[in-house]
Amino acid sequence: MKRVSIKDIAQAVGVSTALVSYVLNNKEKEARVGQKIAEVIRVKARELGYQPNQIAKSLKTGRSQTIGLIVADISNPFFANIARTIEDEAKKYNYTVIFGSSDEAADKSQNLINILLERQVDGFIIAPTEGSEEQIRSLQDQRIPFVLIDRYFPDIQTNFVVTNNYQASYQAVRHLAGQHRKKIAMIAYKSELVHMKERERGYLDALKDSGLDSDLNLVKEISYNFIQREVGEVMGQLMRGHPDIDAFFFGSNALSMGGLRYLNRNNYRIPETISVVCFDESEAFDLFYAPLTFVNQPLLEMGKEAVRILAEQISGKQPQLDQVFVDSALIVREKH
Amino acid sequence: MKRVSIKDIAQAVGVSTALVSYVLNNKEKEARVGQKIAEVIRVKARELGYQPNQIAKSLKTGRSQTIGLIVADISNPFFANIARTIEDEAKKYNYTVIFGSSDEAADKSQNLINILLERQVDGFIIAPTEGSEEQIRSLQDQRIPFVLIDRYFPDIQTNFVVTNNYQASYQAVRHLAGQHRKKIAMIAYKSELVHMKERERGYLDALKDSGLDSDLNLVKEISYNFIQREVGEVMGQLMRGHPDIDAFFFGSNALSMGGLRYLNRNNYRIPETISVVCFDESEAFDLFYAPLTFVNQPLLEMGKEAVRILAEQISGKQPQLDQVFVDSALIVREKH
Repeated sequence: MKRVSIKDIAQAVGVSTALVSYVLNNKEKEARVGQKIAEVIRVKARELGYQPNQIAKSLKTGRSQTIGLIVADISNPFFANIARTIEDEAKKYNYTVIFGSSDEAADKSQNLINILLERQVDGFIIAPTEGSEEQIRSLQDQRIPFVLIDRYFPDIQTNFVVTNNYQASYQAVRHLAGQHRKKIAMIAYKSELVHMKERERGYLDALKDSGLDSDLNLVKEISYNFIQREVGEVMGQLMRGHPDIDAFFFGSNALSMGGLRYLNRNNYRIPETISVVCFDESEAFDLFYAPLTFVNQPLLEMGKEAVRILAEQISGKQPQLDQVFVDSALIVREKH
Repeated sequence: MKRVSIKDIAQAVGVSTALVSYVLNNKEKEARVGQKIAEVIRVKARELGYQPNQIAKSLKTGRSQTIGLIVADISNPFFANIARTIEDEAKKYNYTVIFGSSDEAADKSQNLINILLERQVDGFIIAPTEGSEEQIRSLQDQRIPFVLIDRYFPDIQTNFVVTNNYQASYQAVRHLAGQHRKKIAMIAYKSELVHMKERERGYLDALKDSGLDSDLNLVKEISYNFIQREVGEVMGQLMRGHPDIDAFFFGSNALSMGGLRYLNRNNYRIPETISVVCFDESEAFDLFYAPLTFVNQPLLEMGKEAVRILAEQISGKQPQLDQVFVDSALIVREKH
């Protein structure tokens, strides 16, 4: 497909290329182009399928008014919903969001960063994957505006917007202990990323401060790619090894779904036999027989903050670091 | 931020621009460049944050190896999951997917098409919104490869991959009638798009063929943007006007969620008092107290077919139209 040029339009209408250029760059007033001929040129440009050369335009203004969003897994409702809030928010700044999903794989993340950079995004919002530190450092070296979301790297000084994971987990597990639960297990991801480590740390500290054993054998880590298969197995092992487990803390929405399915299948009653608190929520909770207590992450606030920080960075307003920890709320719903 | 050029790298290393160009275009063997100097040039290019000019590259090969995916609403699990299958599938063809969400708004859809076109995607997979016919015609006029997914326009001859919505609805409602349900209501979207119209047509024909009244008053259409608010109200009105309703057919996953919440809140027992069939599924169904019957759309097959058709179109293999109707399966789970 040959690209339609300004010259093609000029020839088709029978005017000079300069005239077409004035009109298509909205400078017809300065150049005193008649309204009628401007309209003819616009219609013809549309007919021929003319696409303005965004690259040339961007070089002039220095902006493309697009943001690249890289989420860790678009099929996860947490990311799908945060993508939606970021879009809605970006619209207010007149930014369009184009996004990609890294599927928690560092090589896919690098590929997406390259592709979006080549396509002249003004900046990035990224939920970084394990092992993507060098990509983030490279963005810094190139002075490309970006904000991390959901996760960050403690060793790299970047802008970020994350949940206060430690505090949220701590509060959740203290709540379980307050319900007189004595043996609280945690199901987490196998991940070196700080958000998951912080959730585990909050869990362990809450046990200690509640005077309960903080037994590392009660924390089980599941591979990200095999949640549905592994959760059931791992919980089965846990319950056989520790039949006195009376509560589960699930470290994410996907882990919660797998875990609740396991408990249902094996006829554990919630909250009578087993208490449950879920990190993050799911619309599925609304259809569950028992009201579930969960950690409510403020997606709207996270999306707003991320877009604000990025927009300030792009416009050059913001030289300092902006590191935002948003607080989650524990939504207590079970009745004892 | 100034773009790093080949000249910058050449100066930094102290070699000719031709030499740098050979190396960065992987032609060092042809040009007999030493391995050591090639490595030095590559390292320096990385250090300086050199980005190859994708546009120039694309003009040479005619390909950017990227696909633009425009979904109707990324926060809807149907689209989030189909985005994931399209990504996985595209990877096999060595395509990267960048996507945008139109939020069912024609102007946003046009904006995304423009932005992705300017960024040289090789083609599109689009779930078209209401009122986007001209955008689709314009893509055709420009001979840009694309495939519609989930919805299509009967008046425009395009490639598409959609569920056989009529057949799926028909089968679902015949199933309800087979369970001796006498008054079956349908909750649908307010939409002129063919997929929703076909679901309504399937419902009405199934009623007729089952010897039941097909009363248009039993079909209620909800605004897309106010599902959660409207579903409850509308169902309340329906039940008051027709207290003998004994089954609901929900026209989408979001409508099902709202509808099930209403039935729960008002203590209707499923399936004892009210039978339910949902079009499309939700992971929430797994946590519902009653096994729910639903229309299972083959997302994997839809994603595969869409990518296959688009890849064939891009490579110029496919001159004819490829219009794929995939069959859904009715997953019957309730016990009476």
